[in-house]
Amino acid sequence: MRVVQKFGGTSVADPDRIRTVADHVARCKRRGMDVVLVISAMGKETDELLRMAREVSKVRPGREMDMLITAGERKACALVCMALADVGVPAQSFTGSQAGFQTDTNHENAKILNITPTRIQEAIESGIVPVVAGSQGVSSERDVTFLGRGGSDTTAVALAQVLDAEMCELYTDVSGVFSADPRIVDAAKKMSQITFDELLEMTATGCPKPAMRSVEVAHNYGVPLHVRSAFTWEPGTLVVREYSEEESAVERPIIRAVTHDLSESKVTVANVPDQPGVSAQLFRAMADAEVNVDMIVQNVSEAGRTDISFTVPSEDVERTKGLLEGGLIGAIGAEGITTDSSVGRVSVVGAGMKSNPGVAATMFETLAEHGINIEMISTSAIRVSCVVASDRAEEAVQILHTAFGLDG
Amino acid sequence: MRVVQKFGGTSVADPDRIRTVADHVARCKRRGMDVVLVISAMGKETDELLRMAREVSKVRPGREMDMLITAGERKACALVCMALADVGVPAQSFTGSQAGFQTDTNHENAKILNITPTRIQEAIESGIVPVVAGSQGVSSERDVTFLGRGGSDTTAVALAQVLDAEMCELYTDVSGVFSADPRIVDAAKKMSQITFDELLEMTATGCPKPAMRSVEVAHNYGVPLHVRSAFTWEPGTLVVREYSEEESAVERPIIRAVTHDLSESKVTVANVPDQPGVSAQLFRAMADAEVNVDMIVQNVSEAGRTDISFTVPSEDVERTKGLLEGGLIGAIGAEGITTDSSVGRVSVVGAGMKSNPGVAATMFETLAEHGINIEMISTSAIRVSCVVASDRAEEAVQILHTAFGLDG
Repeated sequence: MRVVQKFGGTSVADPDRIRTVADHVARCKRRGMDVVLVISAMGKETDELLRMAREVSKVRPGREMDMLITAGERKACALVCMALADVGVPAQSFTGSQAGFQTDTNHENAKILNITPTRIQEAIESGIVPVVAGSQGVSSERDVTFLGRGGSDTTAVALAQVLDAEMCELYTDVSGVFSADPRIVDAAKKMSQITFDELLEMTATGCPKPAMRSVEVAHNYGVPLHVRSAFTWEPGTLVVREYSEEESAVERPIIRAVTHDLSESKVTVANVPDQPGVSAQLFRAMADAEVNVDMIVQNVSEAGRTDISFTVPSEDVERTKGLLEGGLIGAIGAEGITTDSSVGRVSVVGAGMKSNPGVAATMFETLAEHGINIEMISTSAIRVSCVVASDRAEEAVQILHTAFGLDG
Repeated sequence: MRVVQKFGGTSVADPDRIRTVADHVARCKRRGMDVVLVISAMGKETDELLRMAREVSKVRPGREMDMLITAGERKACALVCMALADVGVPAQSFTGSQAGFQTDTNHENAKILNITPTRIQEAIESGIVPVVAGSQGVSSERDVTFLGRGGSDTTAVALAQVLDAEMCELYTDVSGVFSADPRIVDAAKKMSQITFDELLEMTATGCPKPAMRSVEVAHNYGVPLHVRSAFTWEPGTLVVREYSEEESAVERPIIRAVTHDLSESKVTVANVPDQPGVSAQLFRAMADAEVNVDMIVQNVSEAGRTDISFTVPSEDVERTKGLLEGGLIGAIGAEGITTDSSVGRVSVVGAGMKSNPGVAATMFETLAEHGINIEMISTSAIRVSCVVASDRAEEAVQILHTAFGLDG
């Protein structure tokens, strides 16, 4: 069985942790597994490198940022190889370039164009464990590129696909995907399986790991993911296209998880003329300024005018205000804007809601019973999200977890 | 004028220092110079990486050590490029591989086989300052290689040669090459010029910078070196093949410098049969064990037996003892060994002694006048070295500096 295992951050944060990972890989090898490792930077190293870059310069060319940041993965890979050598497992580190990751030239957030893992395959055939530096590649300009934060998950998934691995294991500091944040909901349960669609909705709405992009890649190529803990080593959560027979049982709740996200702020543009093209003008300007707009809600029109509300990452609020008050409000004929950073988004996610129409109603009723006001609503086929006051968000998660029968 | 400038260690130890280096390069550019930079790791980073490797593993494959250590130079290069961008100087970092440094596969201490600096030349022609990671290359096996400690000086010199630069400037934390260690001799003077031959004798006998290998490379290819300070920026010491007219003046002292080295220990093998092949057997065994033997002195024979003394780095004394007492003494028919770590080597260096035969005599007389006993003597064409008790070594340097008229 061939498996790609990804470790990074806290799981390789210090020499002890690195040796623990090496012991785990040695055990897997003894069980006859073909292991390919993907390693990202140790602990908080990437943050540390970014801090240093900010201290050195206001101008930080992407090419140089990538040269800087990818050094962290190289270090971690080399140390993991040494620890493997120490426990008798022959291993070789490979940079993104050596591993055959060709990318575009979009520095700091490069996309993989092609993978030619010749050296990785040679290593596997020679009984050597390849240890690949995560989140990096070489561009068509022959420059070092970085795939962005969380890009090591993408490296692992892409490598699993191209090497035809049976599983891609993403080792993290949590033991799997939970029905809610266990820090908030005592009864939160680890799910043994979840579908890609559900996990994508969860990562988009507050469940932080694994990185959304890697889930998309895994989904597209049908690479089975296993999200699990590098601390307890117990089985975690399998991410699959469709539930297996035993998981498809009737008992599986309609709603699988309740997530929350406090990182966004609400922006409302008041009294916008309700005419074709106005929304387009507004959100094109936001996109051009690279403000990542998330939920968008437009209320019904009164007397030819309406309010448009949307959420943006809280760190982009000032930029958004500048953009709107710097001419955009006038250009679209609106009256003004208000912003509110004390909001939180609470979502319920589950593929089962496609065939169970009462989910949204149950959610709204539950919140209303507890006097929690809903400020915005948005839905997808398998998710309902409500924006509420941030100081009520945790309570909302708890009561919804109970209401949808997830407490167990 | 094209110049290669090398910075590393303390000169790029923190963001402030890196910005200072960028300011200096910007000034050089404004003066119309074509600058190529070679950067080694920040401050004590290489030591830190080595420490981490030791903590992770007892087995440290050379290939992985090189992957680990070269990350330090990459980081420093990228940060220097950002600082240059900040002061309006376009710059691009290049790894050893990108800069075209092809090496052998001798990891941790690779030799440069060939340099094809195509990308460096393209950068120069586009008005971009190339910033090259020091002490690294890519092997014939397509692996990352490290040229060893001090290898960045070698990178700089080799690049100056292949790019036909008029000068290779090695920036350090001292302001040049001195007639003696200024911490010991108040009257020590910075030399405006020194020959390669003299500097090679000095670096071999206690003057720590620049790395001996880079001086050899510069000598072989006739690359003029300028050893100077990255802290005061004042002109330092030019290293040349022959003194220029004004420096060839009569006033130039016969002896140029007095150096000392406390890092070695003396080993004496007693009562060795004075037969052909005995020394060969002894020092071949030392060489095979990679003990770096320095001075070797054999006394005159008495009754067909003699004593052989030599110096080794103090950290190799135990290994040397083990080797000799573990059979080698018996094999060569010697009586036993003594070791002494409380010794220091004091040397006088100067090309002028070739035509002035009294130098050795003056040195011995001066030491005798002050009651300093000479334990070993060795000479080259332009150097006389004496091993003395380590607690008299500094005094010996002071009195020799005066005796040879270097106090000024």
